[in-house]
Amino acid sequence: MASFLRRRAKNPDTPRPRSQRKKPVVVNRVDLAELTPDPVSYLGRAAYVQLALFETASKAAMAAPTTAGKHALAEVSRLTLARYHGLVAELGRAHREPAEAMEPFRRSIDEFHRVTLGSDWYETLVTSYVTAGLLDDFLVRLAGGLSDDQQRRIAILLAPDGGTDLIVEQLRVAIAANPRLASRLAMWGRRLVGDTLLVARSALSAPVDTTPDEARLEPVFTELIAAHTRRMDALGLTA
Amino acid sequence: MASFLRRRAKNPDTPRPRSQRKKPVVVNRVDLAELTPDPVSYLGRAAYVQLALFETASKAAMAAPTTAGKHALAEVSRLTLARYHGLVAELGRAHREPAEAMEPFRRSIDEFHRVTLGSDWYETLVTSYVTAGLLDDFLVRLAGGLSDDQQRRIAILLAPDGGTDLIVEQLRVAIAANPRLASRLAMWGRRLVGDTLLVARSALSAPVDTTPDEARLEPVFTELIAAHTRRMDALGLTA
Repeated sequence: MASFLRRRAKNPDTPRPRSQRKKPVVVNRVDLAELTPDPVSYLGRAAYVQLALFETASKAAMAAPTTAGKHALAEVSRLTLARYHGLVAELGRAHREPAEAMEPFRRSIDEFHRVTLGSDWYETLVTSYVTAGLLDDFLVRLAGGLSDDQQRRIAILLAPDGGTDLIVEQLRVAIAANPRLASRLAMWGRRLVGDTLLVARSALSAPVDTTPDEARLEPVFTELIAAHTRRMDALGLTA
Repeated sequence: MASFLRRRAKNPDTPRPRSQRKKPVVVNRVDLAELTPDPVSYLGRAAYVQLALFETASKAAMAAPTTAGKHALAEVSRLTLARYHGLVAELGRAHREPAEAMEPFRRSIDEFHRVTLGSDWYETLVTSYVTAGLLDDFLVRLAGGLSDDQQRRIAILLAPDGGTDLIVEQLRVAIAANPRLASRLAMWGRRLVGDTLLVARSALSAPVDTTPDEARLEPVFTELIAAHTRRMDALGLTA
């Protein structure tokens, strides 16, 4: 675990991964096909992750100090719930009840949500931006072992979209108005990476009492962290 | 104000208004065309009302004691945000910024949201159900003075849908498991009617220092309260 965290800043010039483009294409991205869990576990976990991301975004909407901020975070909440709805629809295709499929993941993801929620509006905004960015990116790669059709639908569902821009705009305005926020939020962003990648890692399918081969994980986590670094750059913050 | 509150239980047998049907039709419903504010005020207020309803639903999602309850309230949040998004799109057609159009209504609606949020999950569920039912119903009638096209789009946007059934199911299960909840929630529902109809009434356009003709309002509020009574009936509660 520690190895990929230490390497965080190692590849700042990695080419922009396809997941960051407006119309993502799934081919050629390093994926985790061999570690993809069974489809129902994948979908149950991914859906509950979106619920947690929705709760963070809606908490930020409630705490927004301005009407424009509330509008922006309501939009982020709406886009997150659209992803949730799409994943629930995939569970429906597999004839599974969403609550039942999500249940096994509730406790650990609730705990993740609790410790990453942040102590004020600014931290919660950074959480919404950083954790959604990392987890959506990860979930697209983790879908590598699902059927081609399902993989394609999930890539479309979890593709980056306008919600991110809305958060970036709110945070840039806030940091410009109060430059002392920058170091606190940069530190908060760093802390989030560790907790978020632990959640990601716990989703990998591996035989009990074995750990997945680090060498196989390394390129994926390197890409995830490179994308995270670019997200922090967009805020003018050091990752 | 007091007159329509006192008459609450007077017309329990009023025919089911069209707004309660699956595919609502706008014709022939008692409306408030003469008291409709200008379109931008109408849309700004209606949009901020949906934001407040979203905050109530998402609060209930966060507080849900079960995964099924969280799923249900996430769906209600999603449907509420779809309404919000549609109203913001109407503001876009009028070339207005959503935050600016909503700003004048923020303080009073935030206060309404605060006092109606409820003290536990059950009360918040009832709030979500009762206040959304009354306000969406009211807003469709208040649209009576807008252009025909806009009126039609708003009637479709605010039409009753599946979200209500999800809340009813959660509440019926909760009341069946704990019959003592019934009287507390019935009382809470009664209190909500007064606060909600005050919010509705404050939306009516009337010359400063005059009050709208009670005789003109009476049939509308009678219909709204009859629909509310049926909603409480669906929970097995007395309105």
